[in-house]
Amino acid sequence: MTEVGVTARLQFSASHRLHNDDFDDEWNKKVFGKCDNPAGHGHNYTIEVSVKGQVDPVTGMVIDLKDLKDVVRRVIIDEVDHRNLNVDVDFLLGINPTAENLIVAFWNRLSGELDGVRLDEIRLRETENNSVVYRG
Amino acid sequence: MTEVGVTARLQFSASHRLHNDDFDDEWNKKVFGKCDNPAGHGHNYTIEVSVKGQVDPVTGMVIDLKDLKDVVRRVIIDEVDHRNLNVDVDFLLGINPTAENLIVAFWNRLSGELDGVRLDEIRLRETENNSVVYRG
Amino acid sequence: MTEVGVTARLQFSASHRLHNDDFDDEWNKKVFGKCDNPAGHGHNYTIEVSVKGQVDPVTGMVIDLKDLKDVVRRVIIDEVDHRNLNVDVDFLLGINPTAENLIVAFWNRLSGELDGVRLDEIRLRETENNSVVYRG
Amino acid sequence: MTEVGVTARLQFSASHRLHNDDFDDEWNKKVFGKCDNPAGHGHNYTIEVSVKGQVDPVTGMVIDLKDLKDVVRRVIIDEVDHRNLNVDVDFLLGINPTAENLIVAFWNRLSGELDGVRLDEIRLRETENNSVVYRG
Amino acid sequence: MTEVGVTARLQFSASHRLHNDDFDDEWNKKVFGKCDNPAGHGHNYTIEVSVKGQVDPVTGMVIDLKDLKDVVRRVIIDEVDHRNLNVDVDFLLGINPTAENLIVAFWNRLSGELDGVRLDEIRLRETENNSVVYRG
Amino acid sequence: MTEVGVTARLQFSASHRLHNDDFDDEWNKKVFGKCDNPAGHGHNYTIEVSVKGQVDPVTGMVIDLKDLKDVVRRVIIDEVDHRNLNVDVDFLLGINPTAENLIVAFWNRLSGELDGVRLDEIRLRETENNSVVYRG
Repeated sequence: MTEVGVTARLQFSASHRLHNDDFDDEWNKKVFGKCDNPAGHGHNYTIEVSVKGQVDPVTGMVIDLKDLKDVVRRVIIDEVDHRNLNVDVDFLLGINPTAENLIVAFWNRLSGELDGVRLDEIRLRETENNSVVYRG
Repeated sequence: MTEVGVTARLQFSASHRLHNDDFDDEWNKKVFGKCDNPAGHGHNYTIEVSVKGQVDPVTGMVIDLKDLKDVVRRVIIDEVDHRNLNVDVDFLLGINPTAENLIVAFWNRLSGELDGVRLDEIRLRETENNSVVYRG
Repeated sequence: MTEVGVTARLQFSASHRLHNDDFDDEWNKKVFGKCDNPAGHGHNYTIEVSVKGQVDPVTGMVIDLKDLKDVVRRVIIDEVDHRNLNVDVDFLLGINPTAENLIVAFWNRLSGELDGVRLDEIRLRETENNSVVYRG
Repeated sequence: MTEVGVTARLQFSASHRLHNDDFDDEWNKKVFGKCDNPAGHGHNYTIEVSVKGQVDPVTGMVIDLKDLKDVVRRVIIDEVDHRNLNVDVDFLLGINPTAENLIVAFWNRLSGELDGVRLDEIRLRETENNSVVYRG
Repeated sequence: MTEVGVTARLQFSASHRLHNDDFDDEWNKKVFGKCDNPAGHGHNYTIEVSVKGQVDPVTGMVIDLKDLKDVVRRVIIDEVDHRNLNVDVDFLLGINPTAENLIVAFWNRLSGELDGVRLDEIRLRETENNSVVYRG
Repeated sequence: MTEVGVTARLQFSASHRLHNDDFDDEWNKKVFGKCDNPAGHGHNYTIEVSVKGQVDPVTGMVIDLKDLKDVVRRVIIDEVDHRNLNVDVDFLLGINPTAENLIVAFWNRLSGELDGVRLDEIRLRETENNSVVYRG
């Protein structure tokens, strides 16, 4: 059996504010600094979704990358692209949209949607210098 | 006389909403599409500031790139980074923050701040696929 | 009047063979080397289309980048993506698909399709180290 | 003992067609879509070969990266660069050149060629958004 | 418990010469080739520091990336940036500055400096084609 | 007549120290800061050489990019790669190796070596954020 990993890279542009409503403004400013700006800021996020599975000897593929991207677009990109992650996205409501919290939420959205492969890793890049990775 | 161009690249993360208050919501949605999302979206903007000037035979430089970046940081980056471009930035108030309007505003902020060199071109990248350029 | 340039970057994947049918195999091998491989080779091409125009004071835009990309997709990308540039593309038939010949053909396809802006420059990248540029 | 990983990145340009001769055209078109174009298409492939091994205390190296690249060039790049992967490459004949099948074939070519280190991982990128990874 | 990885990317510019003083010039030239140039050469090094840890439910973060970068700057970047790695850096004295030896030294510098997270992996890139990785 | 531009990108790794021997150490430290480190520092330089010329109707090329790169390698890269730009390169002796001075020296080396095309522009990148451009 030959297991190969397949990675799809997609992007979305969104705004967010890091803030914990359970604490006062002073605490939030101290913890989140300029990321707590009340009117928010934004990023071009890059998401790299990696799956693993057996190579189908008939198709020579683990999964059609087009299909993988269609799933990521449907359950993540279409929900978050050109949105405010604090207020516009149903599955993120009540979540402080740090990269860490986002990637776990994205994993949970994706994990039930993939047939025949297993979700192996997601990497989420906020900037060219900052990223997080999650393996479930 | 030897004229050389010098380019500094800097980045900032900001949110914005494309909207013209003189028109109704239907018009704005039609013209700006998802960029008109009321709660905004955001980008990692890249700004490339190019100046031209004579090479100083004593220093071998047109301008110290550190000095050029300090100016760009002071008059642009410190004002817009981790901000909402619609409401947080004094010199952008009342301006619909399209890339075209931003780059002209940035040019106007910078053009009086550079001694001994002339501002030649600014390029502003909203995403890896979208950019604008301005030469004054 | 404020003229700003706007650049859209798109990509396509295609195969080609550099060959001039007016000359024999020996000449072609000498001139085009491994690029003359009879069964072809391929690239991920990047095309950067730059237009210039006045900033519309109502929209704050020179052209909607989405519209610009739609035009480039319709007249270029949809014709050449996942194609063999020697045999599959009507507007390239009879043209030796060097980067130079491609960029001129792309310019001619695009130049009549853009309203309200002028086509300023196209850059076509064959690899991260090789590119051509054309200004009409 | 200090184990360090070393990664060499190389590129090649090739054309291919995704097709399974055991099935008819309708099936192939349905499964491979535009990747089944009869005259093929192409990519700038990037291959990242990672090995692991002990740091030699005399040289301070796990392997000379120049030597690693020479091996990758000899057994892979020189065979596939500027070639059609369906018909021009002996070790790929009869293989449907999906990224998954290519990476396994590349692994098998490389695995017997490296002395003193173990082949740890290969990543093969077809485009900036699509890649596969294999660990043997 | 939800473990997420966080990666910070930083850069520094330094010069070095690969050389082992225990051996003569002929041996060094044979082993290190042009990297043994007596007056040295240099690189823009990229370092990617990855840590892993639990997501703090109060902050939504594993570690503040700003804090992580401050540590990397203090114990590594400030010591090596715009320096000669053979002679200018106390913690590298006596070490032949191959990428392998550098990454182990950087790991040892960092490993005692991080509270509440564990150092998971460092990647050090000498060029866009050459890198090493270390996991302790 | 159809004039097209052709750009070749190449890289080299070198060390340098910014220093003007006509002035004392205090002056040099003040003007060049950490770039004046006595034992030097280094960069991965990227050079983009752009030529312009008529497209030859027989070959479909302005210049064979392989030939252009061969010239750049012979007169520049082979001289400066893995060298110290202050002491190792004959055509740079006595020149303070700022990016501005380097690019003028590279232009002068190249300008007499290109047949049938004219040298249009050189861009030299010291880091991903710093570059200079020269047009003769």
